[in-house]
Amino acid sequence: MKLCTWLWTLAGLCAAAAVGQADEGMWLFNNPPRHLLKEKYGFVPSDAWLEHVQKSAVRFNSGGSGSFVSADGLVMTNHHVGADCLHKLSDEKHNYYRDGFLARTLAEEKRCLDLELNVLMSIEDVTARVNAAVKPGMSASEAAAARRAVMAEIEKESTEKTGLRSDVITLYQGGQYHLYRFKRYTDVRLVMAPEQQIAFFGGDPDNFEYPRYDLDVCFFRVYENGKPVRVEHYLKWSAAGAREGELVFVAGHPGRTDRLNTVAELEYMRDIQYPNALRNLNRLEVMLSAYSSRSEENARQAKDFLFSVQNSRKAREGGLAGLLDPRLMARKRDAEQKLRAAAPADAQGAWDQIAQAQKVIAQHAARFNALERGLGFNSTLFDIARTLVRHAAERTKPNSERLREYRDSNRESLELQLFSEEPLYDDFEIVKLADSLTWLASQLGYDSPLMQAILAGKAPRQRAVELVKGSHLKAVAERKRLYGGGQSAIDAARDPMIELARIVDAEAREVRKIIEAQDEIKRQAYAQIARAKFAIEGTNTYPDATFTLRLAFGVVKGYEENGQHVPFQTTYAGLYERSRQHHNRPPFDLPPRWIERKDKLDLQTPLNFVCTADIIGGNSGSPVINRDAEVVGLIFDGNIHSLVLDFIYTEEQARAVSVHSRGIIEALRKVYDAHELADELVKGKR
Amino acid sequence: MKLCTWLWTLAGLCAAAAVGQADEGMWLFNNPPRHLLKEKYGFVPSDAWLEHVQKSAVRFNSGGSGSFVSADGLVMTNHHVGADCLHKLSDEKHNYYRDGFLARTLAEEKRCLDLELNVLMSIEDVTARVNAAVKPGMSASEAAAARRAVMAEIEKESTEKTGLRSDVITLYQGGQYHLYRFKRYTDVRLVMAPEQQIAFFGGDPDNFEYPRYDLDVCFFRVYENGKPVRVEHYLKWSAAGAREGELVFVAGHPGRTDRLNTVAELEYMRDIQYPNALRNLNRLEVMLSAYSSRSEENARQAKDFLFSVQNSRKAREGGLAGLLDPRLMARKRDAEQKLRAAAPADAQGAWDQIAQAQKVIAQHAARFNALERGLGFNSTLFDIARTLVRHAAERTKPNSERLREYRDSNRESLELQLFSEEPLYDDFEIVKLADSLTWLASQLGYDSPLMQAILAGKAPRQRAVELVKGSHLKAVAERKRLYGGGQSAIDAARDPMIELARIVDAEAREVRKIIEAQDEIKRQAYAQIARAKFAIEGTNTYPDATFTLRLAFGVVKGYEENGQHVPFQTTYAGLYERSRQHHNRPPFDLPPRWIERKDKLDLQTPLNFVCTADIIGGNSGSPVINRDAEVVGLIFDGNIHSLVLDFIYTEEQARAVSVHSRGIIEALRKVYDAHELADELVKGKR
Repeated sequence: MKLCTWLWTLAGLCAAAAVGQADEGMWLFNNPPRHLLKEKYGFVPSDAWLEHVQKSAVRFNSGGSGSFVSADGLVMTNHHVGADCLHKLSDEKHNYYRDGFLARTLAEEKRCLDLELNVLMSIEDVTARVNAAVKPGMSASEAAAARRAVMAEIEKESTEKTGLRSDVITLYQGGQYHLYRFKRYTDVRLVMAPEQQIAFFGGDPDNFEYPRYDLDVCFFRVYENGKPVRVEHYLKWSAAGAREGELVFVAGHPGRTDRLNTVAELEYMRDIQYPNALRNLNRLEVMLSAYSSRSEENARQAKDFLFSVQNSRKAREGGLAGLLDPRLMARKRDAEQKLRAAAPADAQGAWDQIAQAQKVIAQHAARFNALERGLGFNSTLFDIARTLVRHAAERTKPNSERLREYRDSNRESLELQLFSEEPLYDDFEIVKLADSLTWLASQLGYDSPLMQAILAGKAPRQRAVELVKGSHLKAVAERKRLYGGGQSAIDAARDPMIELARIVDAEAREVRKIIEAQDEIKRQAYAQIARAKFAIEGTNTYPDATFTLRLAFGVVKGYEENGQHVPFQTTYAGLYERSRQHHNRPPFDLPPRWIERKDKLDLQTPLNFVCTADIIGGNSGSPVINRDAEVVGLIFDGNIHSLVLDFIYTEEQARAVSVHSRGIIEALRKVYDAHELADELVKGKR
Repeated sequence: MKLCTWLWTLAGLCAAAAVGQADEGMWLFNNPPRHLLKEKYGFVPSDAWLEHVQKSAVRFNSGGSGSFVSADGLVMTNHHVGADCLHKLSDEKHNYYRDGFLARTLAEEKRCLDLELNVLMSIEDVTARVNAAVKPGMSASEAAAARRAVMAEIEKESTEKTGLRSDVITLYQGGQYHLYRFKRYTDVRLVMAPEQQIAFFGGDPDNFEYPRYDLDVCFFRVYENGKPVRVEHYLKWSAAGAREGELVFVAGHPGRTDRLNTVAELEYMRDIQYPNALRNLNRLEVMLSAYSSRSEENARQAKDFLFSVQNSRKAREGGLAGLLDPRLMARKRDAEQKLRAAAPADAQGAWDQIAQAQKVIAQHAARFNALERGLGFNSTLFDIARTLVRHAAERTKPNSERLREYRDSNRESLELQLFSEEPLYDDFEIVKLADSLTWLASQLGYDSPLMQAILAGKAPRQRAVELVKGSHLKAVAERKRLYGGGQSAIDAARDPMIELARIVDAEAREVRKIIEAQDEIKRQAYAQIARAKFAIEGTNTYPDATFTLRLAFGVVKGYEENGQHVPFQTTYAGLYERSRQHHNRPPFDLPPRWIERKDKLDLQTPLNFVCTADIIGGNSGSPVINRDAEVVGLIFDGNIHSLVLDFIYTEEQARAVSVHSRGIIEALRKVYDAHELADELVKGKR
């Protein structure tokens, strides 16, 4: 029952906060924690160091982080980040996700179907221009539209000028806007993946726990013009790997935190958002588990989705437990009161504006989630249909007036997804869609005109069968035909999934508009709070996570739990022992190769380790590097105590969990005979 | 994906309804379908036949049915009905639930901890007396109290007069009240159970499916005064077993159906009740699965609860799918309109009264479920604490004024449960309670005074730890002390679980009162509808299921599905084939003994079969008998098409699924070497 022992952490929070500077922060590369690092660790990263690390870091747009680890475009990430690609490359006969993969030559490397990697090339502060677009007296809707327009404009200008993918990123919940330019890579090939069972040894029970024994690693190679890309910036491999007590850095893409949220927003999350999210995740987990238990092929189809649902569920449970802890909330309330007391008069209304906007959002959230976020239509075919229907309408509008995902600067990424050859399975699509339509009836009201139109006189299951079996969108050629044909092709289409997307579209757009207007109100209010905060505390701080590149730092060290010391690292010996304790039964079973090769391994080789760096979901696959920017490990999880990091940093027990660099080399050589790959890592080139 | 193919059934519903008399009905033993049976099958059950079958039938108060199958008190039921007892008799070292059990001598039979069996001895119609207690002009609350009072009075008189357990049963949703007198048996001993894996072969994927291959059987023996009871009425064993096309009967205790419900109530179930119930079941399933996956011992502790949650979830999903089918609802609406059109003027308001009462119930249902039904306090220790707190208050009131479960006539049953030596596990209690307290916060509102009082300044998990670890109610002696000590002992108790039960009690009672008043309004309105129905259609009909003894009938036969004929029976050959198809992997794995003994079995022996009898949950363990009242099978499930039987009977594809009597004998002799038991079945005595 380690799941909730994180509570004991909180007792130490106030103490921890009082003791000098913590290893806190997901820092921007254009505002790194130089002062903090110098003071605490006597280390000042140079501009060259920062640029090198920044350009070695890679964002997996499927959700996750990675890094270049050889001059020949080799990218390292987690197995569970590569899972999306592994899953899509697999079929009933080849299960690379479960069984692993190894390309011994370039020719054997397998191209991923729709994977996009991004490398951050430059950052530019565009706050003034974005804010100037919003004129005094504009309504919230007008302001939201104006802001969206100027962001699309900036992005389009930048893309045209530089040829780089350009995104305006909202930071500090609206306090700043930065233009990020990325080099996009879309020819990404699978090099090596271990078996899922060793990558995720211990399964759901061990997820977010420590000690841990996972080889959660995966390698890809980036190509351009049919050849491995030659990159200037890549991380060298450390011979020693992570050592106890040493300062380390994590360069990656934390997905989302809510540390700057007002107490009113946190209460909303505690009372409404998290419980609703958990209800949804529980339903999906049961549905996917039931589907999986019917056959091995079903289990294969659902595995990647099920993993992500279980992972989210466990993270949310930990987050909700944190929000329900009165000590955490008291700290948040206390900090907010202090800030409000010190804030200037013109910022005083901001907190109430946010609370008010949150109330309006609460009224529309269920509908927004159901219709616009698509929770009521859990089907890849529906997602495709909606994209086609909306693209036809949006393409005729000026770039600046479109829904944000249809802006010109996002076109290539959108097409990569839309035209993906990802295999789709009728049975699985039907089960997911029937389940979500059933749920939707309880959200919209069964008798409501919209729900009746959606069901078209059928029961949900029957309707799902009709929609999936009747749709031609499984064929990429048909998607391309409709995409290219514009509004007239969409109007003429009798595809039932297209028709469903049409039925829902007006009401989905309407509720999105309501939510976006409230988001704008919050953005303006948060900007006021951010300005007050900068004025009082200085600008040497970091914004909440936004799935953009950040630098975290910390120390490799263990912690105390229930009166016991938890050592900083685990070894292969521990892996075999834990499997033995559980009689090698799932999810503690070892792949056959690992049982056969046990004697070849040096069992004292470190496998996993922990450090105090400030990470969150999205950081998965981030490199852990030393002062010399050498790879010493690979982030793949946080421990149970880290699940409150969404709201508050603590270093008493919260730890980032990594695969040790030595553990990776040992497995590659001794278990997989992947000497070419191990050599490339050590040498930094092929 | 057979799960929802039941939909195809519905297409045939109207047709089926039009074709003469169906094998429909869960008939009262004092109002059997004599006319129907004579007309359709030329069989008229005599009074002696009916009495014999009635007194051979046994109710498992833990939830399920059974029957005497030998003169020496041998009782047959399902493994999943015996599971509660098997689970409570097991510990970390002996897992009878998983591994099975066989007593070769009387001395080896193991006494169950808190199992109560009931045999129905007589039925008396007390409708007039119950209704007479409700005077014109009484408020709904007064009427509910008066009705509860007269029922307690009738029961007490009866118990005092006859020494039998006496329950007044509400039939036709309030149209009639019958006094049922039961012989209670509480010395019940375990004789034989197979391994859970063969009893529930195919697990959740095969649950509610057919073809099926389960040996879902379990044997107990009833004792009185330390000796096996000699019973006059028991069912003889049929040599041939169930044959295709033959007329069979099922005598058992269907738990609940909602066929007489108004459309307004069905809509409430569709839109509110079922979705809420599923949310709750999904949460529990995920919680229990996660707990189970951590260790084998956790899995053992949670298994029985997890099975029941998954079983309910699948049944509810099927029920909700039925309610969401417009064709089913149209039939219900149509029937209601016809009845209303023919009903007398004074009954016309009844439908609106029910709809109105349902609206009030809807407003209070969440609170009622959370506080009074105890969904917010998922802990056996809490149940015990509440019983103690309430017993102290209720015992001082006149019998007729108490909450119904504290009436004198229920005292012995209540004490049997309260003083059960059922083992309790701290970790499991904590996990369940923390989960339910977390859920409760979203139901009551975290900031509400009641929720704050419940949490006492702690986070849910921390509070659960404090409550479970701090309580002394695990000790039965402590329960007896508090039970015997009355109000002063309870007032003096500082047990944290007792304190929690006290905190909740006033508000729980208050919401119960509101719900009970509305139930009374519904009861009066349903009584009006029932009278109208009897006047129009005659009284030769059956009430909705109430977990009391009913007689169903039907024919042993297969059905058509997706254009294929599904044969009426399966064999042992089919069992081995299905396991092979799934590579003998869970839940399609066979126990070692079944693999070893394969060659000894006659593989052509029938294992399971289906018939058209009208059953529902609670019927599990019911004997299937032929015209001569000989056992030909044992009900254990319904197929997927039967999941709409809650609302409507259909015989097109809906089937009751049974273990074949020959399959039972074959397994007892060839796999378990249980010749004594097989001989006792065949001979009808030891």
